[in-house]
Amino acid sequence: MPGYTESKDQLQARLRRVEGQVRGLQRLVDEDTYCIDVLTQISAVDAALRRVAVALLDDHLRHCVRDAAGDETRGDALITEATAAIERLLKS
Amino acid sequence: MPGYTESKDQLQARLRRVEGQVRGLQRLVDEDTYCIDVLTQISAVDAALRRVAVALLDDHLRHCVRDAAGDETRGDALITEATAAIERLLKS
Amino acid sequence: MPGYTESKDQLQARLRRVEGQVRGLQRLVDEDTYCIDVLTQISAVDAALRRVAVALLDDHLRHCVRDAAGDETRGDALITEATAAIERLLKS
Amino acid sequence: MPGYTESKDQLQARLRRVEGQVRGLQRLVDEDTYCIDVLTQISAVDAALRRVAVALLDDHLRHCVRDAAGDETRGDALITEATAAIERLLKS
Repeated sequence: MPGYTESKDQLQARLRRVEGQVRGLQRLVDEDTYCIDVLTQISAVDAALRRVAVALLDDHLRHCVRDAAGDETRGDALITEATAAIERLLKS
Repeated sequence: MPGYTESKDQLQARLRRVEGQVRGLQRLVDEDTYCIDVLTQISAVDAALRRVAVALLDDHLRHCVRDAAGDETRGDALITEATAAIERLLKS
Repeated sequence: MPGYTESKDQLQARLRRVEGQVRGLQRLVDEDTYCIDVLTQISAVDAALRRVAVALLDDHLRHCVRDAAGDETRGDALITEATAAIERLLKS
Repeated sequence: MPGYTESKDQLQARLRRVEGQVRGLQRLVDEDTYCIDVLTQISAVDAALRRVAVALLDDHLRHCVRDAAGDETRGDALITEATAAIERLLKS
């Protein structure tokens, strides 16, 4: 079971907003908006997308702590996986 | 005139792909995909979005160099603006 | 007790290497090294520093999982704090 | 000739401060400072290092605009190189 079940609706709402923002970017390009203004808007979409990732990671880590519940081997495996995800996010 | 005119179609194609990727994220959440796999996919979308920004910035800087063409005051104003955009991107 | 006790020597060795890399940057500037080459080296130092952060975070999350050990309230408080640290790192 | 000659002293002063901050990190680890507080400080050092990169890039781009001065081939080569440096910085 994924860690985000509780906030699934909220997560989908955020992703729909990001989708709308990406369509907004296409509109800006279509209207020949000045490059720098498109770039500013890309930075905003990027920040929104990363906030989704952080929210998802937060939820997941909470579930890791509960699921492991003293089982050190399981806890370690979950954290190894979570750290790798954080690393991918930092490099993206 | 924006700096991206030449590659406008290519830029729009990239943005449509990013839009598709964001819709893909919604599908993953809908199907209760494991958190870490959603995060990996968010990192991929994020990287794609940042590549669009870099392509746009590259185009823009080329135009700055041409537009300024020895006019130091104009060149400086353009670069101040471009650097600020790079800074926003690094912090997003 | 900090989470990094076990690997304190390793952590200090990494930080000393980063310090050496920053001194290396000063040497490059002193020798009038070409800008782009200095920038490439800054990216390398930056990546090394972020790897230290990820290692530290990994250690810390493992300790969170052990310390919380089924205590949901304590686990939640630790994760709220860890997520905020991840967020600061993503924005730096 | 590197683009940063004019502000070389300022650049060196910034790098010495970053070096001091990295030594500060070693002190924090030595004193068993709480993980999250070390991570907060790493984010600060990272942000300082990235500001150095942005300052260097800003200087460099100004010089590119001047050096190219209407020579489109030279301008293009300089920007290709600068964009690659920005990309490396974004991924570090």
